[in-house]
Amino acid sequence: MNKLTKSIKNKDSYLCVGLDASPIYWSQDIPSNVHGLEYFCKSIIEATQEYTAAYKLNLAFFEVWGHEGLEVMQRILEFIPKEIFTIADAKRSDIGHSASFYAKTFFETYHFDAITVNPYMGKDSVEPFLDYQEKITFLLGLTSNEGAEDFQLVGQPPLYEQIIKKSILWNLHNNIGFVMGATRPDAIQRLRNIFPKAPLLIPGIGAQSGDLYKTIQNAYFPGSPMLITISRAILYADTTKSFYQKAKEKAKNFQQEIDNIVNELSLS
Amino acid sequence: MNKLTKSIKNKDSYLCVGLDASPIYWSQDIPSNVHGLEYFCKSIIEATQEYTAAYKLNLAFFEVWGHEGLEVMQRILEFIPKEIFTIADAKRSDIGHSASFYAKTFFETYHFDAITVNPYMGKDSVEPFLDYQEKITFLLGLTSNEGAEDFQLVGQPPLYEQIIKKSILWNLHNNIGFVMGATRPDAIQRLRNIFPKAPLLIPGIGAQSGDLYKTIQNAYFPGSPMLITISRAILYADTTKSFYQKAKEKAKNFQQEIDNIVNELSLS
Repeated sequence: MNKLTKSIKNKDSYLCVGLDASPIYWSQDIPSNVHGLEYFCKSIIEATQEYTAAYKLNLAFFEVWGHEGLEVMQRILEFIPKEIFTIADAKRSDIGHSASFYAKTFFETYHFDAITVNPYMGKDSVEPFLDYQEKITFLLGLTSNEGAEDFQLVGQPPLYEQIIKKSILWNLHNNIGFVMGATRPDAIQRLRNIFPKAPLLIPGIGAQSGDLYKTIQNAYFPGSPMLITISRAILYADTTKSFYQKAKEKAKNFQQEIDNIVNELSLS
Repeated sequence: MNKLTKSIKNKDSYLCVGLDASPIYWSQDIPSNVHGLEYFCKSIIEATQEYTAAYKLNLAFFEVWGHEGLEVMQRILEFIPKEIFTIADAKRSDIGHSASFYAKTFFETYHFDAITVNPYMGKDSVEPFLDYQEKITFLLGLTSNEGAEDFQLVGQPPLYEQIIKKSILWNLHNNIGFVMGATRPDAIQRLRNIFPKAPLLIPGIGAQSGDLYKTIQNAYFPGSPMLITISRAILYADTTKSFYQKAKEKAKNFQQEIDNIVNELSLS
């Protein structure tokens, strides 16, 4: 948690760049293989690190290349400057015994600072992650996709609220955060009412077109870390071979736009 | 689906051996490294294949070793006789774009016959798996762990039932199955009432002590594939260096016990 707070403060940035590196979208000048993957991710990191508080690595985009994709992921993690916060966007879930192996994977084998976890299987599936007291576990709350409405709103209060409420009882080490989609800013407000101090990881701005101002207005809470995740809108802003220049510009713009909104809100 | 039905028929077996290979439990004569992992899994496969309709590989136990664990997993998959059904117990979940990369990972990169998927994120997170028409996607229903009661029973009817009902509308290619814990046989009966034809993957017998007779009584439905998953009770039945002999005996006993119950039920 300290590392995240420091990383946000040092850069004056709430921006988290999502490394969802897909050969379908990246420049045709980059080969569609693991070498391309490594080149693309490292170029994006070099271009954006000045404006970035955190990098989020979605495991799907590395696993798809088999074991070689995981080797590349490890080198990418080593390439990210030590002071920048890293998140394994793995959305894992399993019974306690297996979950402890997933926790070990991401926190010990790969040394991530945080992970995303799917809470559907309940307390014993989440606890092994929480046992790593220095790491943050972001539980999926109300996600940014259309399918979020299928099950996350079931019940009264809706399921995602019941998850937030119950998770407070599990939060013995103050290391539970939530993934909340920017496409549903009202839900972010309800989360802040129930669990004001939870660190938030917010996807859904950019390609998924959530409202940035409304999102920050509802998510910002002094002293509680908040990360706005942008992936495609930065990674694929330009698909020529100088993609990293446009990525840099985009990252800078997002960092400043977010910072301006936060400043406006904290002065008002 | 055909492959699963054939595999069950060929072996007269509903047994699925779960390769949850943990150095905490395996024989001390086996080294605690990836070489031990490979030796242990291959020994178990050799010992049990005669009695086994399917192998379930829980990703957590391979990922924990980093990229080398995934290399071993690939070799283990090649070692499993072609006619035996293979399941990636990955419990993945993500928004559509990322989910399509997970689907590609398990069905194309690793050539599994089936996968387990966490349905919390709804339709667009599940569809990319269903698009592989020849593969089976087992959604998590009511799982076998204690934490299942935290959220899977929320709502009226309970969440897991709502998931089963909704999934019928998604089942355009007849390739949706469910993971249902043997620790709650009544829920299996409700599933059979709602979705009689769903293939079932049933953990919770053995180490988690579900009731085998009651489970099969509620799960068995002629023409609908059913797999009873046993992991620890076979893998760690003996922790000396001749562990595979006891594993073979245990697999044989489970296969026969299950088959006897099925025969009794289909005659009555």
